Amino acid sequence: MFVTTCKTRVRYAETDQMGYCYYGNYPTFFEIGRVEALRTLGVRYRDLENQGVMLPVAQLHIDYKKPVKYDEEITIETTITAFPSGTRLPFDFRILNEAGEVTTTGSAILVFASTETGRPCSAPLAVQQALKPYF
Amino acid sequence: MFVTTCKTRVRYAETDQMGYCYYGNYPTFFEIGRVEALRTLGVRYRDLENQGVMLPVAQLHIDYKKPVKYDEEITIETTITAFPSGTRLPFDFRILNEAGEVTTTGSAILVFASTETGRPCSAPLAVQQALKPYF
Amino acid sequence: MFVTTCKTRVRYAETDQMGYCYYGNYPTFFEIGRVEALRTLGVRYRDLENQGVMLPVAQLHIDYKKPVKYDEEITIETTITAFPSGTRLPFDFRILNEAGEVTTTGSAILVFASTETGRPCSAPLAVQQALKPYF
Amino acid sequence: MFVTTCKTRVRYAETDQMGYCYYGNYPTFFEIGRVEALRTLGVRYRDLENQGVMLPVAQLHIDYKKPVKYDEEITIETTITAFPSGTRLPFDFRILNEAGEVTTTGSAILVFASTETGRPCSAPLAVQQALKPYF
Repeated sequence: MFVTTCKTRVRYAETDQMGYCYYGNYPTFFEIGRVEALRTLGVRYRDLENQGVMLPVAQLHIDYKKPVKYDEEITIETTITAFPSGTRLPFDFRILNEAGEVTTTGSAILVFASTETGRPCSAPLAVQQALKPYF
Repeated sequence: MFVTTCKTRVRYAETDQMGYCYYGNYPTFFEIGRVEALRTLGVRYRDLENQGVMLPVAQLHIDYKKPVKYDEEITIETTITAFPSGTRLPFDFRILNEAGEVTTTGSAILVFASTETGRPCSAPLAVQQALKPYF
Repeated sequence: MFVTTCKTRVRYAETDQMGYCYYGNYPTFFEIGRVEALRTLGVRYRDLENQGVMLPVAQLHIDYKKPVKYDEEITIETTITAFPSGTRLPFDFRILNEAGEVTTTGSAILVFASTETGRPCSAPLAVQQALKPYF
Repeated sequence: MFVTTCKTRVRYAETDQMGYCYYGNYPTFFEIGRVEALRTLGVRYRDLENQGVMLPVAQLHIDYKKPVKYDEEITIETTITAFPSGTRLPFDFRILNEAGEVTTTGSAILVFASTETGRPCSAPLAVQQALKPYF
């Protein structure tokens, strides 16, 4: 398992008229978490794409437990839950509010794919080597 | 069961640099589908909120099967899968592309809640009466 | 001058906690207006890009006169104010609410550019021919 | 004059299929800049709203000089250009890329308004006192 955290602040743009962070912004928070998790491992997602490998999302699940509010500095906790077997990379996510409460949990399955053909491919060696120590 | 469809066109704002519709836009597509499903039933979601009842999302699941592209006119098919028992209203979604292929499937559980207290409440009578013929 | 209108409904995703449509969504409304204006002229923007010409925005101005609210069906009025001289195409915009009141006015200058080099280029012949009758 | 800077990273969600940061995201960047400028002055915008004063945008201007790309850490430079006279607060903005180049400039005029009535009001004393030393 590999776990990292990063922080971001809920933007006014991300609120809705309920006065909460709109539910459709959490996929973006999870994306931020994934990219920072990879960066911590020494892998920049932008380099992967430049090298011909992209990581589209195949499956997403979110449980909304508590709302998050405008201007709260939330913590995005990202876990890579398994070594990439075949073409897939599984993630778990938790969003914590300023009081440290878990407000949201989620998971996603991403697929390594060729930027040229769009077809699934195996995890690049750089990703495999970076993750090996954690599994 | 109650099924409706509506259409929307993928905006440039909704694309990403993979050249696809960004995965984080689908919750918004599902929201459009829900609101139009209710409108077809004679219930305007904006009226519900004005009457003190909101419908936050408790759970969301999405399976991304095929990408959708810029300027495609997609069909959002929304199904209310069960009569609101207690405080919850369950939805299924399918996104179809211009060729009629199912590109994305999803589901969500929404909760009727008081706009004042934020606490769950039972489905407003207007919603129950509108849905009764379908279950 | 060439004027068209199209309609869209303010999404819940587009509201903010003031209870209005967030000010940052208007550039997207203007983009919808531009694309539909071109479509009415027989030019699909997606085809332009496939043929190697894109239309990035160089300048944007917006005057917010009245707020627009959730679920309002707004009218986007788009005017091409001049024949493309050199590499630039100027637009004016007005957003009208359901009561027909002008809530927002704006303008933008777009630049024809090569998708390959990013450099400005002259307007494609198809665009010139489509616009000629109006100027 | 009062000038502050803050940083944010361009999200994948914010890219478009040109491979650039979508032009409609800059109002959100400016909003982040404004909120952080006020925070540096000791004023939290969320407190202003809780105290009954909001700050909607009346006018926005943006000049797009160079594109910004995915994953770039951009600097948002925010300048309050004048002491709030009457009900208005004017801002200037510059977005710099990782190389320190100015990619985008902009300006906005915000209006202090009552959250209850929506009517313009004068700048809260806390804002006036925080800004006084700079003008």
